[in-house]
Amino acid sequence: MGAPQTSPRPQAVTVTFAPAQQRIAVPAGATLLQAAQRAGVEIVATCGARGRCRSCRVQITAGTPPPATLADRVQLGDDAVQDRYRLACQAEAWTDLTVLVAPPLEEAGFQIMTATAAVRTAPGLVLDAGVVKTYVVPSPPDDETRPSSDLEELARALADAAGGALTGAGARDDAVALDALRRLPVLLRTARDGLTVVRAGDVLLAVEPGDTRAEAFGLAFDIGTTTVVAYLVDLWSGAAVATVSGLNPQAAFGGDLMSRIAFAQEHPAHVRRLHVRLLQHLNAQIEDTCREAAIARERIYKVVVVGNTVMHHLFLGLDPTYVGQAPYAPAVRRGLRLRAHEVGLRLPPATPVFLLPLVAGFVGADATAMALATRLDAAPSPRLAVDIGTNGEMVLGGPDGLVACSAPAGPALEGAQLRCGMRAARGAIDRVRVTPEIAYHVIGDVPPAGLCGSGILDLVAGLLDAGVVDASGRLHPEPPPGVPDALRRRVTVLPDGLPAFVVATADESATGEAVVLTQADIRQVQLAKGAIRAGIAMLQRLTETPDDRLAELLLAGGFGNYLNIDSAMRIGLIPRLARERVHYVGNAAGLGAQMALVSETERRRAEALAQRIRHVPLATRPEFQEVFLEALQFR
Amino acid sequence: MGAPQTSPRPQAVTVTFAPAQQRIAVPAGATLLQAAQRAGVEIVATCGARGRCRSCRVQITAGTPPPATLADRVQLGDDAVQDRYRLACQAEAWTDLTVLVAPPLEEAGFQIMTATAAVRTAPGLVLDAGVVKTYVVPSPPDDETRPSSDLEELARALADAAGGALTGAGARDDAVALDALRRLPVLLRTARDGLTVVRAGDVLLAVEPGDTRAEAFGLAFDIGTTTVVAYLVDLWSGAAVATVSGLNPQAAFGGDLMSRIAFAQEHPAHVRRLHVRLLQHLNAQIEDTCREAAIARERIYKVVVVGNTVMHHLFLGLDPTYVGQAPYAPAVRRGLRLRAHEVGLRLPPATPVFLLPLVAGFVGADATAMALATRLDAAPSPRLAVDIGTNGEMVLGGPDGLVACSAPAGPALEGAQLRCGMRAARGAIDRVRVTPEIAYHVIGDVPPAGLCGSGILDLVAGLLDAGVVDASGRLHPEPPPGVPDALRRRVTVLPDGLPAFVVATADESATGEAVVLTQADIRQVQLAKGAIRAGIAMLQRLTETPDDRLAELLLAGGFGNYLNIDSAMRIGLIPRLARERVHYVGNAAGLGAQMALVSETERRRAEALAQRIRHVPLATRPEFQEVFLEALQFR
Repeated sequence: MGAPQTSPRPQAVTVTFAPAQQRIAVPAGATLLQAAQRAGVEIVATCGARGRCRSCRVQITAGTPPPATLADRVQLGDDAVQDRYRLACQAEAWTDLTVLVAPPLEEAGFQIMTATAAVRTAPGLVLDAGVVKTYVVPSPPDDETRPSSDLEELARALADAAGGALTGAGARDDAVALDALRRLPVLLRTARDGLTVVRAGDVLLAVEPGDTRAEAFGLAFDIGTTTVVAYLVDLWSGAAVATVSGLNPQAAFGGDLMSRIAFAQEHPAHVRRLHVRLLQHLNAQIEDTCREAAIARERIYKVVVVGNTVMHHLFLGLDPTYVGQAPYAPAVRRGLRLRAHEVGLRLPPATPVFLLPLVAGFVGADATAMALATRLDAAPSPRLAVDIGTNGEMVLGGPDGLVACSAPAGPALEGAQLRCGMRAARGAIDRVRVTPEIAYHVIGDVPPAGLCGSGILDLVAGLLDAGVVDASGRLHPEPPPGVPDALRRRVTVLPDGLPAFVVATADESATGEAVVLTQADIRQVQLAKGAIRAGIAMLQRLTETPDDRLAELLLAGGFGNYLNIDSAMRIGLIPRLARERVHYVGNAAGLGAQMALVSETERRRAEALAQRIRHVPLATRPEFQEVFLEALQFR
Repeated sequence: MGAPQTSPRPQAVTVTFAPAQQRIAVPAGATLLQAAQRAGVEIVATCGARGRCRSCRVQITAGTPPPATLADRVQLGDDAVQDRYRLACQAEAWTDLTVLVAPPLEEAGFQIMTATAAVRTAPGLVLDAGVVKTYVVPSPPDDETRPSSDLEELARALADAAGGALTGAGARDDAVALDALRRLPVLLRTARDGLTVVRAGDVLLAVEPGDTRAEAFGLAFDIGTTTVVAYLVDLWSGAAVATVSGLNPQAAFGGDLMSRIAFAQEHPAHVRRLHVRLLQHLNAQIEDTCREAAIARERIYKVVVVGNTVMHHLFLGLDPTYVGQAPYAPAVRRGLRLRAHEVGLRLPPATPVFLLPLVAGFVGADATAMALATRLDAAPSPRLAVDIGTNGEMVLGGPDGLVACSAPAGPALEGAQLRCGMRAARGAIDRVRVTPEIAYHVIGDVPPAGLCGSGILDLVAGLLDAGVVDASGRLHPEPPPGVPDALRRRVTVLPDGLPAFVVATADESATGEAVVLTQADIRQVQLAKGAIRAGIAMLQRLTETPDDRLAELLLAGGFGNYLNIDSAMRIGLIPRLARERVHYVGNAAGLGAQMALVSETERRRAEALAQRIRHVPLATRPEFQEVFLEALQFR
């Protein structure tokens, strides 16, 4: 860190803070946070300027960004660093700079499906979070001849309070949070405005001074392979008061589940590394949501966690190795109740943390939560919910029960691992029209830098319609007759011999290189959609549900909610149903987690549901090969 | 740390290791541990030479001891540092030194009552620790078409094992230790010799490779104001396989309960300091007992803790302030079940830690444990157990129930706060005969350095018999006629005007100063014995139990087991009963803790017992003043 020794060191530099353009001269080498403080520009540094959070992030909009520190890379990720993001507490100003304070992180522009229908609108939902707050005005023990203790007096006051009959809580020998007990003696004697007792299940969780009954919150985490979403929910109303999403920091160790497992398997320390990284992220999200909603973390009384099996295991620090090997068995399937301090969440130690149950190795708690949120178990006629992600999960529910399977689609449908693929972030082409001429939409209305999943789907669908790509997936270097010239001249052969289709020319693009879709890319998309479609087809076969009997197809998950349904049908990702039978349902896993959070009835239903879902391991079915080969076709 | 800059720094120094007299030259400034390693002298440094344990302690027997470090003071205590003890990993040799390796710490010479009757000999004791170990040979899930998980396969194997029917354990959503779950996937697939499943209550606590059924241990802690004793007990046999005792490190912040409370009250950080100090000590004792018995701490499946109310609270990090203020109410009285990681004990996180219930502010879990161990609740005729300590606790049990009280004796009976008083350690006069001439016994058969409690009792009793001290407690500077000359000439008046009795002359003593008992000392003893005796008398009054109806008087606690019963009766510490009705019962609190450890039946009995013991707050009884004044008399 510091200026290169070969260049003369300037004595003072000027830092300009956008958007208000405050300018301040500081000694060269001052951190941007110090400069901001001098300039009277408010930059939040939640971790105390130790590089341990990302609240003080800035983006360098003019001038040479200071070299990235390890903290920058850890907190912001390599992509953001590349994008000139830095932590103000770490970055030193050695040259004149202009910085933008607290720019939204890239994932803020990334189309993560978080804004779901509010959980409280879920049909039939009863708000019963299992948390009870009772306001009491107890007295401390005051008569030496009457044996008592602080806890006994509190219990007495609770019993006296209307509706506060103390059954269970505090009655068992393990039913008082030590933390609450530690606060009790002083609170009992100093809280003139009475106390609020918080009980969760049969545990006396907390004692708070004054009447705090109005405030009760819970956290739902949806831990995806790529994305982690935290919902801070008001337990009384069911409303999400803050939602924060971020990229799963484990992605640095592998983009899909199998590579994540492979990394874990390499060395026992790797499990710990994945585990710790994830927890740091979740703890930062706790901080972020609490700040956003301006509530104290002590008002969080319940946590529900969902995720696929590998994420579930890594959240708990369980080695996922065997989830990746046949027969793909998880360490545990049924729901778990743990406490915040056991699992490493920075919340009051005894806060209950529930993990929803898993169905199987690749049909995780996220699938359970999706089935819960979409009420698949209550379907009088067959309904199918599909979470299209790196690992596709699908559940078909009908009068005969529920079946589920998973399909390892890989990340192609999310734009990853393709020549010009990118996540659905600023600069990504997310909509394409092929005929009569190529037209596209770019996220952020900037020159295009690549293609994201929904754009790729549109493009492939359009190229199929135009005859540039045939049903077998072949992009012929010489398109057949009938293909308009405007498209024909976009077909090229790359230096490495791969046929490709030019979506945006080098002139148009942000990178100076053409944005193309190659033959290899098309094969990736084909394999991905084949996997998903084969899963859907298998569930239809097993339940004898032809397309015309499928009452509804629900598209869930981040990607599922951005794809164009017509394009998805055209390439055969999903069956061709009447358009009104296909619906986006948002982040159903996150919604299910929130339902279990605000309703113990729903949480218990999730437990029963997971046991009722029959998992179909596709690879073990003799007919699967045939179905898969069929599903690979673009028709 | 380092040599004073004003003296020339020697290039090499010689360290001699006693008792084998190995000599080694080392560079000045080398630690004694480094010197030992060079000399081939084995010094155990359990904590990795980080000053975090006391296993590497040495005593400097010749040469100038290096300055004490903070680690020395924390680990060894100021007394030991004063006594030239040092941690070899911290102490640097700057001059020639002779050191004794691993000398017993002072408390090893201190007569702490640890060697009690083995718990297994307690009448009617059933060994049922609540821990079940089952050997199974499970298979990992092996059929993808049969949904399962590692935990389910383990449960199946348990159900198959003879006597291993899995009811409860692993069945509830909070009934599996996360730690065990983390080990399960690998163990299930690699342990060729099967697994041993450990269940405690209804919790699946651990999974161990191989057949480890033979090994099951528990820890009982008896936390006294002055002394902390740890018993490592074989849960199957009830035998204590290692017992370690040490001085309560909180003593640095106050010798008796009230001064400990006063310190806690001064500042919120002080509670934490007392708490942390105690836990460090207990964790060191876990280490020490495990090393002594050569077992792994992972084989400890249960912990039981007893102590007076203040120690109980400080163990849990509860502020004891209000225990010290009328009406002296504890934060909680009933027994608690917590987990090792919650309370800060360095054991596998989910290990259950039980605190036996309290009766009242000054009749703590130690009294409950004493009542349990002495079977006071089963007495057909009245029996009285007295724990004579800094805080005396007494329980009288008979056909009409149980009553208890406490008496703040102060530390005088333990030799503290008297002119020449000392703990019962090496150099202490522990037995005295007064007539016809003074004769005494010194612990360690060395020249006397002071008087400990049992010696003081003998001395006062003898001086009463000889007429040197009268029944009012007065030591007359001119003893009355009839006192033999040999005693008369030992009566002196100290420079400060206090009459005193010379037990050992300056010539005889180890310190070069006479060992004396002053008039003020006698008053201290008088107040202490008066408090105890008044408590006993009050219980007798309340239960209408005159001396002749008292079937048995049981002396418990460290001090109670070393005093001379005749002397105790002579000074009126205890009532004059037929000698065969007075018995030593050892460390009854520690014994009770061990009983609750090896037997859930006993632990549950302790719970019921505490509720049945009626606490009598002496100060609230109108007749107490009269009884106390009576009890003060030496007759």
